Amino acid sequence: MEHHQCSYLNKKENIKVRLSRIEGQIKGIEKMIEEGKYCVDVLNQIAAVRAALKKVGLIILREHTKGCVLNSKGTRKEEEKINELMELIEKFLK
Amino acid sequence: MEHHQCSYLNKKENIKVRLSRIEGQIKGIEKMIEEGKYCVDVLNQIAAVRAALKKVGLIILREHTKGCVLNSKGTRKEEEKINELMELIEKFLK
Amino acid sequence: MEHHQCSYLNKKENIKVRLSRIEGQIKGIEKMIEEGKYCVDVLNQIAAVRAALKKVGLIILREHTKGCVLNSKGTRKEEEKINELMELIEKFLK
Amino acid sequence: MEHHQCSYLNKKENIKVRLSRIEGQIKGIEKMIEEGKYCVDVLNQIAAVRAALKKVGLIILREHTKGCVLNSKGTRKEEEKINELMELIEKFLK
Repeated sequence: MEHHQCSYLNKKENIKVRLSRIEGQIKGIEKMIEEGKYCVDVLNQIAAVRAALKKVGLIILREHTKGCVLNSKGTRKEEEKINELMELIEKFLK
Repeated sequence: MEHHQCSYLNKKENIKVRLSRIEGQIKGIEKMIEEGKYCVDVLNQIAAVRAALKKVGLIILREHTKGCVLNSKGTRKEEEKINELMELIEKFLK
Repeated sequence: MEHHQCSYLNKKENIKVRLSRIEGQIKGIEKMIEEGKYCVDVLNQIAAVRAALKKVGLIILREHTKGCVLNSKGTRKEEEKINELMELIEKFLK
Repeated sequence: MEHHQCSYLNKKENIKVRLSRIEGQIKGIEKMIEEGKYCVDVLNQIAAVRAALKKVGLIILREHTKGCVLNSKGTRKEEEKINELMELIEKFLK
């Protein structure tokens, strides 16, 4: 398998802190469901976790664009990297 | 504090299974970051978790609409429940 | 064909004003494309029109929920109206 | 004012055809509102136009990334072009 260099190394700690917080929020939602908390309060938490995940995604997307995509300029990989980026953006728009 | 009856009781087990899977996926992403996996693979996982959370949200939103919102018809709570529902929909659209 | 009563009558003028503004914005974008305006400026306009359309959608969705959906409570149409509402919300989440 | 070269020139005709179709759809929605058509049918049309606009946006975003963003690599504009791209992606995620 082709080895890809990851571009988010300098943001790794920040991303890990955010993901661990998100994991805690998911556990919190599981507890709310267990306790039968009001639907609206649960839904607000779910929306907050989706927003937090989107933020993590945008941090990585930025580093990926600056690194992998820009570095592909003029190489035979350029079209592939652009395609990958656009597919990701479409997935995040869903 | 006013006690709200939650409408998703009959979907509780289904929701809990989905949330526990999501928790596992978040742990998986943390591991990918730790190992410096390729940005695009990480981003695809994040998009998948957001989609799974949206699905859980829609399950609860449906039960909430069928239960809390419909049951408020003709009561002094009707406007409040409609407002709550619309605010939630806007949050999920972000 | 079954005749449905529309629930947004009391918002009709407001919605028409918003749609005519949106139509003008679309014409403006066509002009920008014709003049080869900078991509980012065009994209900002497209995002603004999508946001304006979402707003119109939420106005109608609110009236529909208050009217058609709530009025279906306890009738044989209830499940159908809930299904319709959830399908719409999913479409707007895309 | 700084003159930006637009990157979508080779897609101009395709974009114009799409925008003119969208303009027609907006007119169609205005007519539906005038005739008091069923909310769900109107909302489905609004969702369709938003999807069509997103498609136009993604076409331009792709050309912009291939052109303006990639061409900024190694220049003093690089950071600015990355910032612009990420702001656009966030706007489209709303």
